[in-house]
Amino acid sequence: MTDTPLAAVIRGGFVESRHLGAYAIVGPGDAVIRSQGDIERPVFPRSAIKALQCLAVIESGAAERFGFTDAEVALACASHGGEPEHVETARAMLAKSGLDAEALECGAHWPSDPAAARELARRGEMPCPLHNNCSGKHAGMLALALALGVSHHGYVGPGHAVQQRIAAILGALTGSDLAAAPRAVDGCSVPTWALPLHGLARAFHRFASGEGVPPARAAAAQRIIAAVRAHPFMVAGSKRFCTDLMRAVPRAFVKTGAEGVFCAAVPHAGLGVALKCSDGASRAAETAIAGLLAGLDVWSDAERQHLLGFARVTIRNWRNVETGEIKSLV
Amino acid sequence: MTDTPLAAVIRGGFVESRHLGAYAIVGPGDAVIRSQGDIERPVFPRSAIKALQCLAVIESGAAERFGFTDAEVALACASHGGEPEHVETARAMLAKSGLDAEALECGAHWPSDPAAARELARRGEMPCPLHNNCSGKHAGMLALALALGVSHHGYVGPGHAVQQRIAAILGALTGSDLAAAPRAVDGCSVPTWALPLHGLARAFHRFASGEGVPPARAAAAQRIIAAVRAHPFMVAGSKRFCTDLMRAVPRAFVKTGAEGVFCAAVPHAGLGVALKCSDGASRAAETAIAGLLAGLDVWSDAERQHLLGFARVTIRNWRNVETGEIKSLV
Repeated sequence: MTDTPLAAVIRGGFVESRHLGAYAIVGPGDAVIRSQGDIERPVFPRSAIKALQCLAVIESGAAERFGFTDAEVALACASHGGEPEHVETARAMLAKSGLDAEALECGAHWPSDPAAARELARRGEMPCPLHNNCSGKHAGMLALALALGVSHHGYVGPGHAVQQRIAAILGALTGSDLAAAPRAVDGCSVPTWALPLHGLARAFHRFASGEGVPPARAAAAQRIIAAVRAHPFMVAGSKRFCTDLMRAVPRAFVKTGAEGVFCAAVPHAGLGVALKCSDGASRAAETAIAGLLAGLDVWSDAERQHLLGFARVTIRNWRNVETGEIKSLV
Repeated sequence: MTDTPLAAVIRGGFVESRHLGAYAIVGPGDAVIRSQGDIERPVFPRSAIKALQCLAVIESGAAERFGFTDAEVALACASHGGEPEHVETARAMLAKSGLDAEALECGAHWPSDPAAARELARRGEMPCPLHNNCSGKHAGMLALALALGVSHHGYVGPGHAVQQRIAAILGALTGSDLAAAPRAVDGCSVPTWALPLHGLARAFHRFASGEGVPPARAAAAQRIIAAVRAHPFMVAGSKRFCTDLMRAVPRAFVKTGAEGVFCAAVPHAGLGVALKCSDGASRAAETAIAGLLAGLDVWSDAERQHLLGFARVTIRNWRNVETGEIKSLV
């Protein structure tokens, strides 16, 4: 099956660029209730499955043992902007585990939040691994290593108990054989496995509904959903799509991944969604996931209006003149 | 005609994302000597035609009247990174015209060069229109207004003599009727007209070869080509594709435009090239234009090796681990 149009970029009323891709929505009974494009082709989910990786942190008892708050659990599911609140929360998670930033194996990069990056520069400082957008996830993985009773050194390696535990969860939720899936190294050095979109959507259906999931895992999922709902800022940050959408529509669960991936869930309806923009563009994945969610018959009118607002974004130039828009085609 | 594959993004040996688009190469007699994809569909060239816009600055006598140096002419063709040398050169162009940054109608944005942006933040300063990547082009347009003997106020408007003069040049070189072309507002507030790729490639063929072009315009084109060749840093900046490619292969002329456009010329062979990545991705347009140029039988072995190097880019993660590559498929 070929790719389907996901989003168009309009300038002066004329289509300037266009984005293709595929998506799947899975509901009760693991049924694919809507899809377009090739949903069998394996896709690296990247950061879109951080909530599933976090299940291992909760299930293992690590979150309870180290007393992680809901804000900290939300940060463990985050691709955050490196804003001060994110950095301090990651530091606190490490301190609770008796560790510090030295233990992080994610590498350092400048905060993706422009104001945070400029403030760091203004103070003459350089970024450290705490500023890495994945530092919360890594703090969770370090706590997991301690809870498993293994050395945390090399926790990012595919053979380490931390990643093996996560792989087992991903395999069970997606219904995929991870040993046979293409495997690569993610931007933060942990493994990422390429999985079909229908499997990723199935995983988020099960995550959100608890259907076919052991009780401890279902409870862990509910804790994560509640934590993210209570702290949407922790999952991304200022002027970020995931934070803004979940603030506006708390009953939606959405998470971006690099290279145009989006996963989502609608817990109150037991639905899971996975989407990939084939060219890797975030702008298309964002507008399309909003358009796709808006099209589901599970929202109040107010929620749907909010979602439609995220499905159509005005483009302004450097003098704040409206020059066009990006709009979902799904 | 459908889009053709331009570039692939590989992670762990597996295709993670893919980019489609179209391109045309035009040579002697305005003949299309190679193309793939739909080269009739109009494309907003955006900043990829700054060298053609600059023709008006040279032809009008503005560059001579105000004594613009080759570095300043190159900056008038630039999408620069807002580095100190760019900013000071734009300031000098305005001073020669008896103007200052107040006259610029491009708007302000933070330098796209990360180090320049952080240095500005470190000093507690804010960006001004001189930091706008188009400030050199706008300084040229202001000089053009003065040379034409008209008020420079509103020089970005489609009805202003500056833009009318530029439109006439674009129409003649591309062989297009601009009055009938879709028109939109560019990021820096000047008009941009959507033109077919074969027309854009034809324009760069004529620009580079002088074929079918009045002598004064052909001479202006040669001055621009020489200026850019002498000052590739001015056209983009540190770690930027256009600067790096033209430093490595001075006989190539390349210019990026927003939304995945690239125009190029091979002056010594009289060839013009225009390429659009349909989804607007710069990474694909960059690797594909390099791959396309490398495939032309007009280079020394050393030049071809350099071009092939730009057609295949290694992706590294935050710990500098190689995780994949972006490679041209043309």
